[in-house]
Amino acid sequence: MTTSAPPVAIVMGSRSDWPTMKKAADALDELGVAYEAKVVSAHRTPQRLVEFATGAKAAGHQVIIAGAGGAAHLPGMVASMTPLPVLGVPVQSKALSGLDSLLSIVQMPGGIPVATLAIGEAGARNAGLLAAQILSLADPALAQRLDAQRAAQTDSVAESVED
Amino acid sequence: MTTSAPPVAIVMGSRSDWPTMKKAADALDELGVAYEAKVVSAHRTPQRLVEFATGAKAAGHQVIIAGAGGAAHLPGMVASMTPLPVLGVPVQSKALSGLDSLLSIVQMPGGIPVATLAIGEAGARNAGLLAAQILSLADPALAQRLDAQRAAQTDSVAESVED
Amino acid sequence: MTTSAPPVAIVMGSRSDWPTMKKAADALDELGVAYEAKVVSAHRTPQRLVEFATGAKAAGHQVIIAGAGGAAHLPGMVASMTPLPVLGVPVQSKALSGLDSLLSIVQMPGGIPVATLAIGEAGARNAGLLAAQILSLADPALAQRLDAQRAAQTDSVAESVED
Amino acid sequence: MTTSAPPVAIVMGSRSDWPTMKKAADALDELGVAYEAKVVSAHRTPQRLVEFATGAKAAGHQVIIAGAGGAAHLPGMVASMTPLPVLGVPVQSKALSGLDSLLSIVQMPGGIPVATLAIGEAGARNAGLLAAQILSLADPALAQRLDAQRAAQTDSVAESVED
Amino acid sequence: MTTSAPPVAIVMGSRSDWPTMKKAADALDELGVAYEAKVVSAHRTPQRLVEFATGAKAAGHQVIIAGAGGAAHLPGMVASMTPLPVLGVPVQSKALSGLDSLLSIVQMPGGIPVATLAIGEAGARNAGLLAAQILSLADPALAQRLDAQRAAQTDSVAESVED
Amino acid sequence: MTTSAPPVAIVMGSRSDWPTMKKAADALDELGVAYEAKVVSAHRTPQRLVEFATGAKAAGHQVIIAGAGGAAHLPGMVASMTPLPVLGVPVQSKALSGLDSLLSIVQMPGGIPVATLAIGEAGARNAGLLAAQILSLADPALAQRLDAQRAAQTDSVAESVED
Amino acid sequence: MTTSAPPVAIVMGSRSDWPTMKKAADALDELGVAYEAKVVSAHRTPQRLVEFATGAKAAGHQVIIAGAGGAAHLPGMVASMTPLPVLGVPVQSKALSGLDSLLSIVQMPGGIPVATLAIGEAGARNAGLLAAQILSLADPALAQRLDAQRAAQTDSVAESVED
Amino acid sequence: MTTSAPPVAIVMGSRSDWPTMKKAADALDELGVAYEAKVVSAHRTPQRLVEFATGAKAAGHQVIIAGAGGAAHLPGMVASMTPLPVLGVPVQSKALSGLDSLLSIVQMPGGIPVATLAIGEAGARNAGLLAAQILSLADPALAQRLDAQRAAQTDSVAESVED
Repeated sequence: MTTSAPPVAIVMGSRSDWPTMKKAADALDELGVAYEAKVVSAHRTPQRLVEFATGAKAAGHQVIIAGAGGAAHLPGMVASMTPLPVLGVPVQSKALSGLDSLLSIVQMPGGIPVATLAIGEAGARNAGLLAAQILSLADPALAQRLDAQRAAQTDSVAESVED
Repeated sequence: MTTSAPPVAIVMGSRSDWPTMKKAADALDELGVAYEAKVVSAHRTPQRLVEFATGAKAAGHQVIIAGAGGAAHLPGMVASMTPLPVLGVPVQSKALSGLDSLLSIVQMPGGIPVATLAIGEAGARNAGLLAAQILSLADPALAQRLDAQRAAQTDSVAESVED
Repeated sequence: MTTSAPPVAIVMGSRSDWPTMKKAADALDELGVAYEAKVVSAHRTPQRLVEFATGAKAAGHQVIIAGAGGAAHLPGMVASMTPLPVLGVPVQSKALSGLDSLLSIVQMPGGIPVATLAIGEAGARNAGLLAAQILSLADPALAQRLDAQRAAQTDSVAESVED
Repeated sequence: MTTSAPPVAIVMGSRSDWPTMKKAADALDELGVAYEAKVVSAHRTPQRLVEFATGAKAAGHQVIIAGAGGAAHLPGMVASMTPLPVLGVPVQSKALSGLDSLLSIVQMPGGIPVATLAIGEAGARNAGLLAAQILSLADPALAQRLDAQRAAQTDSVAESVED
Repeated sequence: MTTSAPPVAIVMGSRSDWPTMKKAADALDELGVAYEAKVVSAHRTPQRLVEFATGAKAAGHQVIIAGAGGAAHLPGMVASMTPLPVLGVPVQSKALSGLDSLLSIVQMPGGIPVATLAIGEAGARNAGLLAAQILSLADPALAQRLDAQRAAQTDSVAESVED
Repeated sequence: MTTSAPPVAIVMGSRSDWPTMKKAADALDELGVAYEAKVVSAHRTPQRLVEFATGAKAAGHQVIIAGAGGAAHLPGMVASMTPLPVLGVPVQSKALSGLDSLLSIVQMPGGIPVATLAIGEAGARNAGLLAAQILSLADPALAQRLDAQRAAQTDSVAESVED
Repeated sequence: MTTSAPPVAIVMGSRSDWPTMKKAADALDELGVAYEAKVVSAHRTPQRLVEFATGAKAAGHQVIIAGAGGAAHLPGMVASMTPLPVLGVPVQSKALSGLDSLLSIVQMPGGIPVATLAIGEAGARNAGLLAAQILSLADPALAQRLDAQRAAQTDSVAESVED
Repeated sequence: MTTSAPPVAIVMGSRSDWPTMKKAADALDELGVAYEAKVVSAHRTPQRLVEFATGAKAAGHQVIIAGAGGAAHLPGMVASMTPLPVLGVPVQSKALSGLDSLLSIVQMPGGIPVATLAIGEAGARNAGLLAAQILSLADPALAQRLDAQRAAQTDSVAESVED
């Protein structure tokens, strides 16, 4: 079987989630990890969901990042149909500020895990980093790039409170 | 096509939801509405979910009652794969008392409605009643039974606060 | 008695709810379902509420959509006075973002169901769609229009995350 | 018109609310204020609600105490149909511990006030006391009894933390 | 002792609460009920609080409206030092939108009631109306003005959803 | 001026708070810090509150620990009437599990701080420890006892997860 | 460098977390994944935390599962000191039922991810499964065992709602 | 050992917290208390955290003010590594308005106290004042300045609600 797909897939429930989820892509770009990003709506395109999730491993993906808001079913439903690790990003919702997204993603029943990150852009960035951490277990060069990035991040935190 | 399935299907994410969801069945029993009840786990049996939801209308169902707790994806995912009205019952969860179940069910995006009832047994009973109300629009005899039941319910509310 | 009223009634607690509730009307317009919309305040016009709710079925309505915010009593009170299915839309409130509206509408006691949708415009649109789903059980042409709309909705979800 | 009704009416949505609402009655008993208590369900006996609320003032009541749980509409609906002060008691609910009851009662729109007390028995007792405070404005003897009770309450608070 | 103070006192924890609390004053103005409004901070002017609360009845006040935000102690502390009915208005706070204000005001222990209204301007207006309702029990002319205002309010609710 | 009072005062709104607040006393006992504990109800004994708070410093207290539940006004009101550091302990409440207590204590306005600890017994114990930390700034022997206790606490945390 | 440590480390803030965290261990046992479990308290044994976290990778661990309750800092602090993936389990807390644990773990800032699971035992079991999913990316035999377990889980969900 | 450090250290998790935390500095400036302020990120600079916290007392600090937002671990982690009193300021977060920050800081386990203030700027100002109150126990001149400031604060609260 050819496995031409990049190691990370980023899926999201709506194109309007992209400004948030782009932070995951940015983190992967910084670390030189390939990914593809697309819209897969659990509710509006359930067939696309099934096809994507059941085929993700065979396609060659290794980690899936899924973002959604409100009654956010995408991460959990993808997780139910793939053995790959699924990282869930609660997108900030309008009325309830993402509390609904968070609970819909994180409170999965025993048996089907979703690795949930923080609400919004910080969570999306961290999903990208976590995906890289996972891949780095078998990729020493990536592990080195992660270490370097972490070190640079530490160095960038100046002690001074003023600019 | 033969449509031998009863008008109402009651599905739930786990057998442990049955003590709650039985209240929906009880309400339908009282009103003489046929139903079938089964476990369909969105997360642990996603294929069963797809088969059930995509086939529910052709099988002859008219209304679907779906109950689940925690990150409760069953009602919304069924709704995404059927044109039938889906009534969602948030089952009371252990840590968050069903607030997670409620938000996971009710906060559906525009395009895919789930008719959400109250958390727990009251919501399950009301799902049964609402299913009957919907069916009664085309079934005058059922409408009469609903009216009689509603009248009896009203009569049963004694004014006295003591037994 | 003549039953000239359209199948769906949309009522709301205040004219300020109309920008939200108009999404229900829009959905019905798209599907060719007739409705009438009016302001019925449970608190400021209780007599109008009683007249509307007790007379809704005889007037010819089949489904009622009721939207309100804050201590949102309109959907539940309408439901207590009609055998018709009542769909409740929690309007986003100022201080608590609609959490009060949601709980006031959804947490109905056993015996009187309100089919509750999401907070705000998504919920209003879904109330319109759900009303059409209910009516379509006895209206194959409407069912076809719903199927077509759903298919178009699915098709409109492009995979690409960029415009 | 004869006004034989006692000054305070205590109404509640269900007989199961009586163990809570009895604390209001107890407070009134302690202060020698007459009341009558009955079950008036906003949802299951809406006609009784209308009759009670619209007739309460003419019947001779001066203050109404209304308790309910969950989607607690009774206090607000009574308030919408009477010019009398309505005191609302949020009864502790099963799943959400009365947070739903509280928000359903207190978040009334401008125009129709409900004087809301604490969730549960403390709130019920305080509803009784508040009714007495209101009546005492025109009843110096009651005001004296209230002062005596308040003084006794203060005296009863021993400084010692041990029995 | 001369009791020249107006029947209603409106107190608030900070001058920044006045835009909210002015709605209480407006309601009283509409109904021809005299009041005085002033800043009494439970935390920054505790002595002024004690003097105001312990002297309010003797000064001639009959009802006290108290508004505060955050850890809102003013209504409850005034209530602890006066036998007059105290109406509490939770002012919308910055971080928690008034949920803190609401819980700080409404969750009073048994023995010291505070009649709590909704968060923000609606609650403030309703505090004014409730004060008038209480005073009207002994003031038939005010009762008539309240009835007229309520009738006008009902009439002002046009059915049409469009302007 | 004679300062015969012990350095720490523990006050609480009700004797029923003692099982919680005793944990503060226990912590002080372990560290050899003298204290006195008594019931001072902000709502039921406001005069005792004023006397205690305004006289606490002159009496010789240096730190005040105040615990209360529900609409918990005691810590903030004590803080408003003393220049001493006030440590607030939110006692777990029945309906809302202490979330009301916490918000009522911690959300103080700028100008009057209350050092708030965790809900319940852990918070009470920590109030005792924090009082000792504060006093130890001028008491090297107490600082040594605190260091020893902290070291013992660290040593007591066995790595093994089984007994 | 010798890497004798097992691939998974399970750490928890207190021995009282073990009944919850044992579910992670059970899941790893079922899948034949080696682990070690120990108590590492972020607050009471900060030095042990630093030693564990900074040395975890060199010791040979590949994935870390960290559980804690209340102000749950352990997962985030471990994550800040290791490049390994850290899976966080919010242990159900007494007063706030684990909502505090959840928010303390999941709301990490951009830069330091923690893969958060559900509150309580379901989350702990899922942490074990997720750790195995991650390790299986480089361990086809483990991947097969995971697939078999998932299939068995699916098969075990009987449709019947009755025993 | 020279102890040249000022009595108060203000640390924060990110430079973006400075607009909030500057209110603590302002309060200390008004009272003539020296401090130093710097960024110490628990997550991005854990080594700096350890160095700061373990060395704070020896460096000469007496009180530490720590502010952070979201999963706010800085105050608790500093507290775990110093015997000095630690005052925690929950910085208002984007999605959850600081509720996550508050719970992450205040819900510390028994053994390691963090004196928590209100969310946001009011809390930061109060942290500065509380630090001064603590220091004033051994500094009569500072106690006098605090008394004067408190008196001025009281005087500044004009009774008039209008400018």
